[in-house]
Amino acid sequence: MKIAVPREKEIGEMRVALVPDIVSRLTKKGFQVLVETGAGEAAHFHDQNYIDAGAEIITDTKQLWQEADILVKVAPPGEFDGEAEINSLRPGSILISFLDPLRNPENILKIAQRQITAFSMELIPRTSRAQSMDALSSQANIAGHKATLLAAAHLPRMFPMMTTAAGTIPPAKVLVLGAGVAGLQAIATARRLGAVVEAFDIRPTVKEEVQSVGAKFIDIPLQEETNAGGGYAKEVSNNTQEVIRQVLTEHIKKADVVITTAQVQGKKAPLLVTEDMIAQMKRGSVIVDLAAEQGGNCAHTEAGKDVQYHGVTIIGPVNLPASLPIDSSQMYSKNLQTLVQYLVKDGEIELNFDDDIIDSACVTHAGEIRNSRIKDLLPSQESSVISY
Amino acid sequence: MKIAVPREKEIGEMRVALVPDIVSRLTKKGFQVLVETGAGEAAHFHDQNYIDAGAEIITDTKQLWQEADILVKVAPPGEFDGEAEINSLRPGSILISFLDPLRNPENILKIAQRQITAFSMELIPRTSRAQSMDALSSQANIAGHKATLLAAAHLPRMFPMMTTAAGTIPPAKVLVLGAGVAGLQAIATARRLGAVVEAFDIRPTVKEEVQSVGAKFIDIPLQEETNAGGGYAKEVSNNTQEVIRQVLTEHIKKADVVITTAQVQGKKAPLLVTEDMIAQMKRGSVIVDLAAEQGGNCAHTEAGKDVQYHGVTIIGPVNLPASLPIDSSQMYSKNLQTLVQYLVKDGEIELNFDDDIIDSACVTHAGEIRNSRIKDLLPSQESSVISY
Repeated sequence: MKIAVPREKEIGEMRVALVPDIVSRLTKKGFQVLVETGAGEAAHFHDQNYIDAGAEIITDTKQLWQEADILVKVAPPGEFDGEAEINSLRPGSILISFLDPLRNPENILKIAQRQITAFSMELIPRTSRAQSMDALSSQANIAGHKATLLAAAHLPRMFPMMTTAAGTIPPAKVLVLGAGVAGLQAIATARRLGAVVEAFDIRPTVKEEVQSVGAKFIDIPLQEETNAGGGYAKEVSNNTQEVIRQVLTEHIKKADVVITTAQVQGKKAPLLVTEDMIAQMKRGSVIVDLAAEQGGNCAHTEAGKDVQYHGVTIIGPVNLPASLPIDSSQMYSKNLQTLVQYLVKDGEIELNFDDDIIDSACVTHAGEIRNSRIKDLLPSQESSVISY
Repeated sequence: MKIAVPREKEIGEMRVALVPDIVSRLTKKGFQVLVETGAGEAAHFHDQNYIDAGAEIITDTKQLWQEADILVKVAPPGEFDGEAEINSLRPGSILISFLDPLRNPENILKIAQRQITAFSMELIPRTSRAQSMDALSSQANIAGHKATLLAAAHLPRMFPMMTTAAGTIPPAKVLVLGAGVAGLQAIATARRLGAVVEAFDIRPTVKEEVQSVGAKFIDIPLQEETNAGGGYAKEVSNNTQEVIRQVLTEHIKKADVVITTAQVQGKKAPLLVTEDMIAQMKRGSVIVDLAAEQGGNCAHTEAGKDVQYHGVTIIGPVNLPASLPIDSSQMYSKNLQTLVQYLVKDGEIELNFDDDIIDSACVTHAGEIRNSRIKDLLPSQESSVISY
């Protein structure tokens, strides 16, 4: 069975789907691994490393896609030089990648129409059984860590308390909004660097996790259900959002750094930090908005830019995991390896749709979109027409 | 007695000589403090903060310099709009600043000719009595901390070990060359972030300090004296340098990050990492060369630039303390406050040249250059001519 690893062509995507170490494990299990020349370069893995791991280097992009039984990717397949990448993939083959299905349902439709069986890594369920395939979590870990490093690199003061002959420098105050995987890792890194950290999440259930990584949890009693399950928060009413903002304003005023990570799956990110709240912050403070690509948690956030407002720097990073491509590729590869070995039994692909992992992550099969939330986003006539 | 705080006009200098907190302490001691409008802006201290601390805001730059009994500065006085700043300073007044005297002896000559009593903060002796005035150390602390943050922000992998469902990411390997104040702080921050750290210094006496901040000391037996005293290393023979490079090559090969901090006072920095050694490093590795402004410890270092060579990023930062202006100004202010209060007894300036602190730091007085090392750098006829 042939697993193909293409070179990522998306601008700024430095990751590679499989690192040599994982290729080596897969070839030892009997898989044939094809790697497009230069696929690992941006992540500092070289063709020779892949050859040493037992892979075959393919220079012709189309050939690589055509030969794949399973094609593994990082970014959703796109169009380059006027040609859609998936048109080079054989009907009946398997595609495993981040597919951003809720924001890009048309792409999923095209994949279905091409008769490709596609797995969306975003839809791996957040269960303990699927933990080792959970790429959203593995990449969020990295994003959270880097968010704090970005804040530390931009803040005009240090994070740690320092007691020196020239007096004592107090520790920086960091506020993390949203305590999912990224938020918890942002807290952990800020604590490592010696900051005093507070955190808030609308799911009161995460209080203990927040405390266990060394932050103070901000308790705000709310009158509605806020947990959507699976590690996600529910969208809450405007009234509740207003209550939250009022309490947070007092904490934001005192913070040197605010890191926001609040996302509602498939929807625009909630606005947590308003223009008015930013204006009350200390000058020189830094906001890192990890929801920048989903519309942002802060007023004035611009994805891919550092914005100055009222003396506050608002950083809207894009694809942070790609900025640590060695580790993010390593972890993503491990997620893919586990999923591939889960799908393939004795050299044959087994698709048991009664299995919740497969049922949840497999978005297209046999010409159909399998996920009703994705279908609902498409005009009804389109999603039912299966052409090939 | 009037202490004047000018706005720093050097490009990239974000620090201010006195922060409002220290101004407040000085005004309470009976000093009159004059602050040039906007002097603290780049460090996020505002005119109103200075007014609240008891300072008077002066809008006319020349007036500020002329009124000063003691003028405190960060960067050496320079020439702006065709006029030398020191020409606005009254003969007989006191100037306290970094003066970079060994690299810029002509400037010291001009200050002497202007009959100004100048204290060079670089020349505060590194004794325990003078510790709280030691601005080189206070600023080196900050530079060392930031050097590690820069490395972490540029490295394509994380510093901490991470054990996750997607496998274990090993910690980054950091090598620090030169274990003075900056080097020790770079080690401490790298350890905080979870890296495995090794360090080397040609002064074997610092081994214990290196170990106490959590790094492994690389022992290289050397055949000559390497300690110049006062926290400085001596310049060593080419032969010894070659021995060191041979041992270090093996350690550099394995490192993800190399931070170099080796300086020899008043001389070009020693070359520790050659082109050949860089070429043997792992691709994606990062070097931060804190000696960039003194010519660099690495081949290919360029002050103020990030250079790519053989897949290695070589960062040559300039004036790192200025990138954390809140804390660096705070610590520098404290150093200045201590020195000012040391010089002024009952409202009068007392210059006791039998005191080693005053003797060492005071570079010009009564029209003369007091320091023989600075004098030796000037053509002999010039340094003896005192004109005013």
